[in-house]
Amino acid sequence: MPYRARLKVRFGDIDQAGVVYYPRFLHYFHVAMEEFFSAEVGMDYARVLLDHRFGFPAVHLEAEFRRPLRYGDEIDVEVKVARIGEASVDWRYFVYRVGESEPVALGQVVTAGIDLDSFTSRSIPDWLRSALLPHVQT
Amino acid sequence: MPYRARLKVRFGDIDQAGVVYYPRFLHYFHVAMEEFFSAEVGMDYARVLLDHRFGFPAVHLEAEFRRPLRYGDEIDVEVKVARIGEASVDWRYFVYRVGESEPVALGQVVTAGIDLDSFTSRSIPDWLRSALLPHVQT
Amino acid sequence: MPYRARLKVRFGDIDQAGVVYYPRFLHYFHVAMEEFFSAEVGMDYARVLLDHRFGFPAVHLEAEFRRPLRYGDEIDVEVKVARIGEASVDWRYFVYRVGESEPVALGQVVTAGIDLDSFTSRSIPDWLRSALLPHVQT
Amino acid sequence: MPYRARLKVRFGDIDQAGVVYYPRFLHYFHVAMEEFFSAEVGMDYARVLLDHRFGFPAVHLEAEFRRPLRYGDEIDVEVKVARIGEASVDWRYFVYRVGESEPVALGQVVTAGIDLDSFTSRSIPDWLRSALLPHVQT
Repeated sequence: MPYRARLKVRFGDIDQAGVVYYPRFLHYFHVAMEEFFSAEVGMDYARVLLDHRFGFPAVHLEAEFRRPLRYGDEIDVEVKVARIGEASVDWRYFVYRVGESEPVALGQVVTAGIDLDSFTSRSIPDWLRSALLPHVQT
Repeated sequence: MPYRARLKVRFGDIDQAGVVYYPRFLHYFHVAMEEFFSAEVGMDYARVLLDHRFGFPAVHLEAEFRRPLRYGDEIDVEVKVARIGEASVDWRYFVYRVGESEPVALGQVVTAGIDLDSFTSRSIPDWLRSALLPHVQT
Repeated sequence: MPYRARLKVRFGDIDQAGVVYYPRFLHYFHVAMEEFFSAEVGMDYARVLLDHRFGFPAVHLEAEFRRPLRYGDEIDVEVKVARIGEASVDWRYFVYRVGESEPVALGQVVTAGIDLDSFTSRSIPDWLRSALLPHVQT
Repeated sequence: MPYRARLKVRFGDIDQAGVVYYPRFLHYFHVAMEEFFSAEVGMDYARVLLDHRFGFPAVHLEAEFRRPLRYGDEIDVEVKVARIGEASVDWRYFVYRVGESEPVALGQVVTAGIDLDSFTSRSIPDWLRSALLPHVQT
């Protein structure tokens, strides 16, 4: 089963049009990745950054918003990995309203491994590669 | 000359990695579109929403982040239109650090015209179409 | 036992100084109030707003930040009620790092009941008053 | 004349109640302080942090929200200094809708000087004290 993080649309996530402000979806993706690290990698993303000095900035993203989210919606953000490169990971996100089978939004975020001190490219560490492998969708 | 909105990276835009949190780029795109409406369409986006009840939610987006932005950076966000459909607009954004000629980030956001009361599709009004036409890049 | 909402400090909550950006504490207070409504009032705050058209904007706030929060911190936000007026509620928030007994931050937010359509004052409904009463600290 | 920073309420600043989400006011205060540093102190706040390693976290705040702000509002945030202590500054903010003489919101933020590397108390540097003195209201 792919990993899913359950989140709630918050009062402050809503914009003037009465739906979730679209940059918040990207925040939801990031929060889901943070939860994925804790649950599936076995290390909080905070520790990856603060202790291992490994950073994972987004270098490319795509998203499709099919239906609006409203205040009060609960969502499951499914996290999959499409590809693990030498120093990058291609993440896929699927946002479902709880109980629905069609996603309201889909996203792709490619993150590049960097050394946080020098901001230069850094290979995916083995412990991270092994933890991500079972989540590669085929 | 394409339209450019000048913005500043703010203290609160920075994340744990010491660079702009990537969802903030999408916020910058939106703010640049808001400024574009005031400057080039001749109507504040607030009036489009509140008086004309015309909404423009994002349905698709792509972005590429080439170099990080840091606190203190000033940026120009260039706004172009790639295509005006019957009820959608394909916007392009180019983020430059002030004084640089290579963008640090590029984005595409497709927005779909809707009636804000019914949240159903609505054609781009003529006054908006005419105002956008000179900004279509060829 | 006073109600506590457990939250996590997120990657994007951090500012250039490496600690939680102080407006985010106010967001934490609001999220804790939202959780309080679901858990203790028995009605999601979304339903209060969308179905009952009852709004609860902040009219006064005070906060004290004793120690910084960092990325990776988990927090409990304790929610208490100091006073229920005719059309206002005086909420108190106490933010604890999980497992600590001294709060890192304290807050007071006075919210005023309004009719969301007219934005005029509205008395606290009886069902809300009864639900809040057991949380009044003495 | 006290310093005023002109800001615009943005689409994404609005919440489910159709007004500015109250934590955004605290963000407005911070942005106004950032502008104040550039305009009145003569040094960008980014440089204060990044070059001087001087930080200024909020330790106490109070705010009063008298009237809601809506999307499309332009505001002037007036910045005053109530008191300069050995290692703290007591800032006062007054938010006016452009053209109005009564503030819609008022705020106080006490910031404490710290060394950003050790997060320990640090006296206000002389260059900052001198720059702030003319803004002390009497």
